[in-house]
Amino acid sequence: MLFSHNEYTNRLQRTKERMEEAGVDVLLLTNPSNINYLSGYDGWTFYVDQMLLVFSDEKQPVWVGRLMDAKAAKLTTWLDDDNIIPYGDKYIHSSVRHPMEFVGDVLTQFGYGTKRIGLEMESYYFSALCYEKLRNRLPDATFLDASLLVNWVRLIKSDLEIEYMKTAGKIVEKGMTSAIDAIQSGARQCDAAGSIYQSLISGTKEFGGDYPAIVPLIPTGEGTSTPHLTWTDRSFKHGEMTIIEIAGCYNRYHSPLARTVSLGKPDPRMEYVSNVVVEGINAALDIVKPGIYVEEIEAAWRNVISRHGIEKESRIGYAMGLSYPPDWGEHTVSIREGDKTVLQPNMTFHMIPGIWLDDSGVELSESFRVTNEGCEVLADFPRELVVKEDGYIDPWNQYA
Amino acid sequence: MLFSHNEYTNRLQRTKERMEEAGVDVLLLTNPSNINYLSGYDGWTFYVDQMLLVFSDEKQPVWVGRLMDAKAAKLTTWLDDDNIIPYGDKYIHSSVRHPMEFVGDVLTQFGYGTKRIGLEMESYYFSALCYEKLRNRLPDATFLDASLLVNWVRLIKSDLEIEYMKTAGKIVEKGMTSAIDAIQSGARQCDAAGSIYQSLISGTKEFGGDYPAIVPLIPTGEGTSTPHLTWTDRSFKHGEMTIIEIAGCYNRYHSPLARTVSLGKPDPRMEYVSNVVVEGINAALDIVKPGIYVEEIEAAWRNVISRHGIEKESRIGYAMGLSYPPDWGEHTVSIREGDKTVLQPNMTFHMIPGIWLDDSGVELSESFRVTNEGCEVLADFPRELVVKEDGYIDPWNQYA
Repeated sequence: MLFSHNEYTNRLQRTKERMEEAGVDVLLLTNPSNINYLSGYDGWTFYVDQMLLVFSDEKQPVWVGRLMDAKAAKLTTWLDDDNIIPYGDKYIHSSVRHPMEFVGDVLTQFGYGTKRIGLEMESYYFSALCYEKLRNRLPDATFLDASLLVNWVRLIKSDLEIEYMKTAGKIVEKGMTSAIDAIQSGARQCDAAGSIYQSLISGTKEFGGDYPAIVPLIPTGEGTSTPHLTWTDRSFKHGEMTIIEIAGCYNRYHSPLARTVSLGKPDPRMEYVSNVVVEGINAALDIVKPGIYVEEIEAAWRNVISRHGIEKESRIGYAMGLSYPPDWGEHTVSIREGDKTVLQPNMTFHMIPGIWLDDSGVELSESFRVTNEGCEVLADFPRELVVKEDGYIDPWNQYA
Repeated sequence: MLFSHNEYTNRLQRTKERMEEAGVDVLLLTNPSNINYLSGYDGWTFYVDQMLLVFSDEKQPVWVGRLMDAKAAKLTTWLDDDNIIPYGDKYIHSSVRHPMEFVGDVLTQFGYGTKRIGLEMESYYFSALCYEKLRNRLPDATFLDASLLVNWVRLIKSDLEIEYMKTAGKIVEKGMTSAIDAIQSGARQCDAAGSIYQSLISGTKEFGGDYPAIVPLIPTGEGTSTPHLTWTDRSFKHGEMTIIEIAGCYNRYHSPLARTVSLGKPDPRMEYVSNVVVEGINAALDIVKPGIYVEEIEAAWRNVISRHGIEKESRIGYAMGLSYPPDWGEHTVSIREGDKTVLQPNMTFHMIPGIWLDDSGVELSESFRVTNEGCEVLADFPRELVVKEDGYIDPWNQYA
């Protein structure tokens, strides 16, 4: 197990307290991060229906999933074997049966078929059809939306969680170094992506990497005017910019980091924007400390950029930590105007105030934790636009 | 664009025909594979709400998504800019607004707010909450489940799609070779995973790799008794088996492949099981041809294994091709008893009849397309248990 039995039962206790506040008798978790957080479960099995059932009056949660994956639950969770309840393959991608019928029957067997059932209505892995099938199976139950209940429990990290995130920070330093090395005029984007992956997954000598919840995002050229493009097998070009947004991941805990590379002398406008972004990040990190509102971080950033005539429509960051694809954000706190969350030590965020203009963009980011007096960034990497005066020779052409 | 304008409009036409059959006036697509299939859209943006709206009486679909991602739609789709309709960041992870309210208003503007609306009720990226919010916004609409409508349109591939999948087959041959090279006693699992990633993403000299919809699955030792474990930073051990399930991916088209490696002489029981699996796959591939039922493939397999005293509870394969995380399966056809789909040329499947026993397991698989007379596997890789008599020296210890 990656955490002590005590840490898991403590998490479970805090979850049950929130369930009681929300009037939830049983909580049905499908978000793989929440399942992992409470049980330790880890496997690429969330593409079929699976759940962790947290009963208000049972000591352990119950894992429900596909038969072939039950052994994964036995190997990776702290649950007793009796609390691992598999369904047969006949439920998979069937037009006549649905796994939620099975789940409904399990709830009935545990005496919860007519109780108040908390659902993650906004989870990637609880579809609209799951909701309909479950309601049909349990017509006398009361359903409540408990989408972010466990996400909020996860907001403040334990010391060991912070340690994992700092390790992820070491891994992302290595990944970013590989990225900057690999991005050269004439090099294929896919080769750079391959190199980034090898760094992030292999990890450091002491700590192996895990798969990040988002693939490397490396938009280049005009593609930098939007943040979420991946790569092609075309080549990087001299005179163009490339954004790199990646994360180190260790035991499913993330440390994201973004930088921007210019191959050759950057456009003066984008150099100016980069400097403003760095100044804005510095100002925003400077005011972070326990007791302030999250929105104050964004205000400090906005104060800097508006002085330089730059506007930004979107939020500049979000809470993050433990995660599975497709997102490493926790979907709770956003660093933006109106977010009145009060900062506390060991909250962790990714601050990524990207600026995307019509035909080009810049991203620099920092992941940080709130400390007792201020904050601490998770990765140590120069906070600046990377300018490479490259003289790359295409090895394929060279030896062809 | 990766396909001709003609191919996209042809796909759209076939989709509209099925919409008419199903009585759907407008189809709301959230499955990223279906969005890509009809529009060309490609980006890691499906972790926020986005949709492709297919109107029965409009020439082009409409993309709706986050403002910062609108440029990605302009760069990757064949749609006119007017058909790209972004919503603001205030809708993201908000407790007071929801993107489906915006989508509802777009439908009303197009005159479809009271029509028959087809939903992908079983998509990963259309949550139960999306469904509720949309119903509340459009109380006079009629909602229909159209979950797999486009998935079924995708079942038979075009010649260019087959070409992409064969290219993915070349990439997975390279990835599997790297995997087998990297899996050695004393080597860390994460280093093998890093090496596999580099091969799959870098691709071949001619064709760069794309990210597969599932990460490399490399359960080892007792972990081979379940299929969907990833990796740790512990080392492979002499005398243990490791399963490798990976896919090459090219332009989002997949070619999955599984093999099993034994480090040192295999347990005779598992060697026996491997031989039976190979014999079963051979028998199953042998009977594939247009005109037969899909379930006949499974029957041919089962006939072989039952003769050897082996049973398998789960399906042995599924339709696949174009995909995004978290699954490369198409969720339409399953190779199992009862599936009466009639095979036709250019249907494509991953046949993966894994056998997982109490403490160990074996997987070998083949991806194949149905041809005019029979079938053709997409990757050329020896179909056998890989036995390595390894003499690996840990480089960290060697140079420490």
